[in-house]
Amino acid sequence: MRIPILKLGNYLLVSIQIELDDKTAVQFQQDLLNMIHKTGSTGVVIDLTSVQMIDSYIARVLGDVVKMSELLGCEVIFTGIQPAVSITLIDLGIGFRNIKTAMNLEQGLEKLKQSLEG
Amino acid sequence: MRIPILKLGNYLLVSIQIELDDKTAVQFQQDLLNMIHKTGSTGVVIDLTSVQMIDSYIARVLGDVVKMSELLGCEVIFTGIQPAVSITLIDLGIGFRNIKTAMNLEQGLEKLKQSLEG
Repeated sequence: MRIPILKLGNYLLVSIQIELDDKTAVQFQQDLLNMIHKTGSTGVVIDLTSVQMIDSYIARVLGDVVKMSELLGCEVIFTGIQPAVSITLIDLGIGFRNIKTAMNLEQGLEKLKQSLEG
Repeated sequence: MRIPILKLGNYLLVSIQIELDDKTAVQFQQDLLNMIHKTGSTGVVIDLTSVQMIDSYIARVLGDVVKMSELLGCEVIFTGIQPAVSITLIDLGIGFRNIKTAMNLEQGLEKLKQSLEG
């Protein structure tokens, strides 16, 4: 089970619409980094609108993928974080430090464009 | 197993990155029509870049989804049709009659915009 990654111009779009188990999350991490490398994308929007729950392991994998992508020269924005997910993230003391967010996919793409194309 | 449908402004984006079995294809048909209805989207881009093979049943389901979407007032464009898939479609005598296509997701979105926004 892989999470589809869409290429749109210089950006990648990901919409996580399944319950993320540990294996899928790690597979996604690898797939996304490979795709960034292969396409030379400068930005990624990861949409979490359909993610209702998140645990500490998944939060860490997602947090790591941001740092790893940045090392490749690619900016990541999370969109559509649900109230329950935001509560869990803060309660777990994980948060997404220094991580950019937006309400939805369109606004995430807009934010990336502003940030990367000035 | 469901195919994720992404909402981007007035459009929906779908990238089919798994082997489509009959059940998944029918589920996708239902999901897409529900999503068009729910979001009031005016256009859909269905990217088939990762689809290496297609059979007559799947081709029919995809062809039907275009006609069904049009009934809802929504235009569909297929992108990234692989050479092998195009050969199969023509060999099977199915083709995608009167169906709009484009090379990739970006061009598909561009074509939708031109067609719908003039």
